[in-house]
Amino acid sequence: MSRKLEKITPRDENFAQWYTDIVVNADLISYGPAKGTMIFKPYGYAIWENIQKYLDQKFKELKVTNVYFPLLIPKSLFDKEKEHIEGFSPEIATVTKVGDKKLEEELYIRPTSEVLFGTFFAKEIQGYRDLPLLYNQWVNVLRWEKTTRPFLRTSEFLWQEGHTIHANAQEAKDFTLKILDVYSKFAEEALLLPVIRGQKTEREKFAGALETYTIESLMYDGQALQCGTSHYFGQNFAKPFDIKFTNQDNQLEYAYSTSWGVSTRTIGAIIMTHGDDHGLVLPPMIAPTQVMIVPVKNDDTLLTVAEQIKKQLGNFRVVIDESEKSFGYKLANAEIKGIPVRIEIGPRDLEQESVIITRRDTFEKVQVKISEVLATVNKLFTEISANLFNRALANRQQRTIKVNSYEEYKEILKQKNALFLVPFCGALACENIIKEETQTVSRCIPFDISQDVSEQCFRCDNPAQYLVYFARAY
Amino acid sequence: MSRKLEKITPRDENFAQWYTDIVVNADLISYGPAKGTMIFKPYGYAIWENIQKYLDQKFKELKVTNVYFPLLIPKSLFDKEKEHIEGFSPEIATVTKVGDKKLEEELYIRPTSEVLFGTFFAKEIQGYRDLPLLYNQWVNVLRWEKTTRPFLRTSEFLWQEGHTIHANAQEAKDFTLKILDVYSKFAEEALLLPVIRGQKTEREKFAGALETYTIESLMYDGQALQCGTSHYFGQNFAKPFDIKFTNQDNQLEYAYSTSWGVSTRTIGAIIMTHGDDHGLVLPPMIAPTQVMIVPVKNDDTLLTVAEQIKKQLGNFRVVIDESEKSFGYKLANAEIKGIPVRIEIGPRDLEQESVIITRRDTFEKVQVKISEVLATVNKLFTEISANLFNRALANRQQRTIKVNSYEEYKEILKQKNALFLVPFCGALACENIIKEETQTVSRCIPFDISQDVSEQCFRCDNPAQYLVYFARAY
Repeated sequence: MSRKLEKITPRDENFAQWYTDIVVNADLISYGPAKGTMIFKPYGYAIWENIQKYLDQKFKELKVTNVYFPLLIPKSLFDKEKEHIEGFSPEIATVTKVGDKKLEEELYIRPTSEVLFGTFFAKEIQGYRDLPLLYNQWVNVLRWEKTTRPFLRTSEFLWQEGHTIHANAQEAKDFTLKILDVYSKFAEEALLLPVIRGQKTEREKFAGALETYTIESLMYDGQALQCGTSHYFGQNFAKPFDIKFTNQDNQLEYAYSTSWGVSTRTIGAIIMTHGDDHGLVLPPMIAPTQVMIVPVKNDDTLLTVAEQIKKQLGNFRVVIDESEKSFGYKLANAEIKGIPVRIEIGPRDLEQESVIITRRDTFEKVQVKISEVLATVNKLFTEISANLFNRALANRQQRTIKVNSYEEYKEILKQKNALFLVPFCGALACENIIKEETQTVSRCIPFDISQDVSEQCFRCDNPAQYLVYFARAY
Repeated sequence: MSRKLEKITPRDENFAQWYTDIVVNADLISYGPAKGTMIFKPYGYAIWENIQKYLDQKFKELKVTNVYFPLLIPKSLFDKEKEHIEGFSPEIATVTKVGDKKLEEELYIRPTSEVLFGTFFAKEIQGYRDLPLLYNQWVNVLRWEKTTRPFLRTSEFLWQEGHTIHANAQEAKDFTLKILDVYSKFAEEALLLPVIRGQKTEREKFAGALETYTIESLMYDGQALQCGTSHYFGQNFAKPFDIKFTNQDNQLEYAYSTSWGVSTRTIGAIIMTHGDDHGLVLPPMIAPTQVMIVPVKNDDTLLTVAEQIKKQLGNFRVVIDESEKSFGYKLANAEIKGIPVRIEIGPRDLEQESVIITRRDTFEKVQVKISEVLATVNKLFTEISANLFNRALANRQQRTIKVNSYEEYKEILKQKNALFLVPFCGALACENIIKEETQTVSRCIPFDISQDVSEQCFRCDNPAQYLVYFARAY
């Protein structure tokens, strides 16, 4: 690319503009021609491929198998589950014609595929021995958005959607929680995002679900982002879709279903959690390039050493920047792309059989012997991972505020974004008012805080049902 | 599944019904609720995943990188290249509204993505140093079909579409041929389909292309199937989409583009080439399960031996059938699913420390010592692969007929499906008549036959331009 590296707006000056500068300048995306669509460029898509590889393996360990269900859903089918269609209908792109010919029945582009899986399960299962069925698909979905932002909110996005069906309620519920475990481990280990595990309130749960479980993270600017959800439907889909099986007592019974998803939004979370004024900062585990080797110039001696080092780092994803750009450009490019570790090879260091290794998160440099590069990179990846995670956790902790009064809540919001822990009544009406007045929404009823609550709701003074996190959110 | 194994219609009795019986009974697919759509069940999707793994690696060896471009294309954009839109317009599913709101501009669901890549390339490239760009995406596309058949012709299908852009015509053309090499090696090595490499005639080339290259295979019933195509566009897309770059002489020049694709149709080709009256027969390289181990009963001794054998076969994809089905059902299930090698473990053979190994293609059985299972399976895979390929090649050779007269051509067609090699004038009008009168179409102008032709066109008696293959086709 003859692309110039543009100046990035400082993060604390204008976070939204900083974000836009990063996604474009780090070569992650380009804007698509249809409203609210985006193009995943090679570097952006490679991050998603690494996320896929990680999650796909974890799903397979739970005996989940991949399938592919159609993009188009007949309107009449989607309309069968009332809450579900009410939740999604304003966002659904609809095919009404092919060529010049009007279709007899309108077709919806999937915003999610519960109704397709439901229809399939109804045909597929007969007895309890057929259960459970544990399916997943990696697909594109469409949900029309008024205002869009790359990764965070686009008309089309990529995700995995898992759909399972079980012979009893407990097993289904347990499975949603097993998946939540996979998701939180994925977020914390692979993306280095500290997450809060919990349950969604009545207002925030998935359209049609009995219970929605979630992992929530807090971005650098103090706004929350949902990183993955897992839904327990009970028999909510089994009834309208007639998913019945013969149970062990030889009785016909409606089956119990779940669904769960992680999307390309998580790439937005990585950017907004770890990025800095120099560009992207990528977690080593999902970075497309983990180590960038930059020779001071492209001469044979330096390139030979570069190749030796690349060989030494055999198991890592290593690129030697042999482009015709200047040395300075190459360093800046490695920075803006958030490559975890950069190795500079210059003639003076070579005299001492050493190279300079720079870590992206802190810009600390060390001079190391060539023979010790692998050990150093291994050590740095551990340190970088710990540092990124802890930095994000410190930001969240520093912004977490326990509040009992709505006045105080609103006062703090005037000054900053925070993650509020509040006693809450749980009522839909109360939550609607909070949303309208403060543009904050509940994130979850956290698992790891005792829910033995004796206080009043922070807003309406009715008895609180649980302690809930609220925040502004993406 | 409590699914019963249904009787399969004999292949020679009714090939179309045989095909339908196979795709359903081998658990590859289920029908989707919207017209012409299908569901890839786990077993069917796993074949596609293996195809993806194979091709993705080959593309990456050519320095092609993966990207993701949007599903929806604004109508005005698609309409820019005249031949392209004329070719595709009757098949395009069109989004006209979101929720209840009519869109200002209609959006096409991609039937292919040349126009999106074209628009992107125009923004992205500036000088010759930016070139080539070599991109690929694994996506769903929609082309509405009047009559549909699983894998072969569905409204939605999965494929990879590669799109590249180059600084000169020769390099672009060479790249289309490099990809054709990848495709033919893939077909012959992984799918065991003997293919004919060649160029499409004027009538059959891709809408908008200067040249279309293809690999063609012949199914068991003597109908042809196109397994992959690679298109050279010259500057056909560069001009309407204004894809210009500064060349080495510092002049603005239109760039040269290509595209190429392989789809889930290839799974149909595998079925129709290798399958038999007992079910699917899968090539070892892409079989989801390469070895099925079937203990005569689920007792501890037999299962322990099964586990030992599975361990011995560590690098292969091996499944032990521990289900509660009868032994007979398990054998039939391994047959219908086309699993290349089946290992039966029974107490009597165990006394001699041996097991029975059956190959799926010929049903030959051998009794082998447990210690020799790995060596035997390795040997069998080589033999099975050679046999499947040679069997398909023999069928094609036996059906290939060189014909010079249109009367003879029509006479033969009354009796059977054949692959005709004919001297042909190349004229669109002449080919249209052949299609109309005989429902046969040209497959390709083959590379490996001397095109120094002095004969007359087999139909119109004008001077022939080349020797061309014609056939009925899927």
